[in-house]
Amino acid sequence: MKASFHEIAGAISQANRIVILSHVRPDCDAIGSQLALALSLQQLGKEVSAWNEDGLPESYRFLKKSALIHQPPSEAEDFDLAIALDTANQERLGTALRAVRRVNLWINIDHHASNPCYGDLVYIDKIAPATGQIVYEFLLSEGFPLPSAAADAIYAAISTDTGSFRYANVTARTFEIGAELLRSGVNAAAIANKLYESYPKRRVQLLGQILPEVHFDADDQIASMSLTKKTKQQLEIQPDDIDGLIDYVRSVEPVVVAIFFEELPEGKVRISMRSKDDRVDVNKICSEFGGGGHPRAAGARIRGSLEEVRSKVLQRVFHEITKSL
Amino acid sequence: MKASFHEIAGAISQANRIVILSHVRPDCDAIGSQLALALSLQQLGKEVSAWNEDGLPESYRFLKKSALIHQPPSEAEDFDLAIALDTANQERLGTALRAVRRVNLWINIDHHASNPCYGDLVYIDKIAPATGQIVYEFLLSEGFPLPSAAADAIYAAISTDTGSFRYANVTARTFEIGAELLRSGVNAAAIANKLYESYPKRRVQLLGQILPEVHFDADDQIASMSLTKKTKQQLEIQPDDIDGLIDYVRSVEPVVVAIFFEELPEGKVRISMRSKDDRVDVNKICSEFGGGGHPRAAGARIRGSLEEVRSKVLQRVFHEITKSL
Repeated sequence: MKASFHEIAGAISQANRIVILSHVRPDCDAIGSQLALALSLQQLGKEVSAWNEDGLPESYRFLKKSALIHQPPSEAEDFDLAIALDTANQERLGTALRAVRRVNLWINIDHHASNPCYGDLVYIDKIAPATGQIVYEFLLSEGFPLPSAAADAIYAAISTDTGSFRYANVTARTFEIGAELLRSGVNAAAIANKLYESYPKRRVQLLGQILPEVHFDADDQIASMSLTKKTKQQLEIQPDDIDGLIDYVRSVEPVVVAIFFEELPEGKVRISMRSKDDRVDVNKICSEFGGGGHPRAAGARIRGSLEEVRSKVLQRVFHEITKSL
Repeated sequence: MKASFHEIAGAISQANRIVILSHVRPDCDAIGSQLALALSLQQLGKEVSAWNEDGLPESYRFLKKSALIHQPPSEAEDFDLAIALDTANQERLGTALRAVRRVNLWINIDHHASNPCYGDLVYIDKIAPATGQIVYEFLLSEGFPLPSAAADAIYAAISTDTGSFRYANVTARTFEIGAELLRSGVNAAAIANKLYESYPKRRVQLLGQILPEVHFDADDQIASMSLTKKTKQQLEIQPDDIDGLIDYVRSVEPVVVAIFFEELPEGKVRISMRSKDDRVDVNKICSEFGGGGHPRAAGARIRGSLEEVRSKVLQRVFHEITKSL
């Protein structure tokens, strides 16, 4: 049963000790939503904890007051109210769920269509581009405080979950909220700069090493790139340096399937695959190699040398493309 | 003397044959502004030409009705009214200027701070993030038509000139206009996809050639990249393949000034420069080399070999950084 903002506000007003949770490996929408709601409730005089399994990722430490967000304590605690944000199912709360012992009421606020509506008061808006946008509408509609650090956090959440206002989930209301947040004092450019325009020098060096080796097959319908163990060691590559690299080849006009090969330790290769055509289901292909995902974005870990895996996977994708297009 | 929107609208209403011009190597703000104004004036029954030296770049052909934009004819023509958009000085109109013979009145609408206010009716708003935003405000305030293709063009102009709503020039009003355009039917995600996520194979090959040669100076506060004539020929590079390349180095964390050097035919080098710190004004530096622009984004064309220009410009920037930071 869908709760109204007003019912949620009522539950909050009756609670004192409140814990705000979000999913494992939190993205900026998770962190921004947690932070904004936590700061607002603190200002209402509530005793607020904000936990997720991994705590605050380094890349979001620039958000004011973000130190509020912690990994859960090892000993479970009791609360009047627990609020899960941006978390498609309760298991994705990970250790943060186990750190909540007794609680009178669970609230679940999210924008994932797959959310099974766990909890006592549930507000799922699968059209909302970001949970941050739902939190903003909630604070606004209930007249809850929006301190400046909370406004920043909402802006960061919305900006990242819309790919900087580029994805199909953006509506006129999203832009309107952007305008309202800027009017309230958010420095959008400073936040965007921290989110998108500050990467380490090694990222450019990494691109300089892998882009010259991009490989096109099947009349440029397949594009692939490889990252060797050697390059990773040499440039001291961190996991998030690799995020989004596949987009460099996915965005090439005639490409239908983009593949990223990453040489792992222990004789394995991680593959990421993207399809731009519904007739080529990369989830199906990756499943055959023991992986999975979605029809347009999937992955797998495959035993073998980089060359063996490349050749096997490229052959399989070539076959699928020839058959399907 | 700054003209009002109303005076500009008056001049338009009295004219019949109107030419809308923009700068050489048009970016999406130039094209989008030209296209939006041209479509609006056509709908008012005007006989409109829209020219720029290079015509319509391939990457903006997706804009509806963009075929309206042409290279100037070889034989000069007469007009009642000429309108220059997004063009910081009249010389930047290039061959498009020479194709205008007699004209009763010149209008100059722009957002470049360095614009010397050429023309009879001048509207410079150096705070506006895009000339497209000025054109939009003009059409709105004067009740001029905004056909759907014009709304798309304005959206594309604003999106690109703000780096997808990320730059410091974005204001609450910019977001509000985004909301208004989406409400009027603009498909923002489809436009963003064309602008940012579809490029030719040669773009990846180009990155593969220039990124390994990126050069860092002054403790990584200066990053520079170069594009030679040879690479351009070999990959058949079009001018718009080069757009945004400078962002690859601008976004590196410690970089304060990013510089792009492009070897031109006739023994010249085109430089683009970006600053991430208000204390380093790249408009000032580029002006010394005969160019101009904004404090944080400027350019110039300099006579000399690639090596000579690189060394001269890097030295000048090094000096400025040492002095200012």
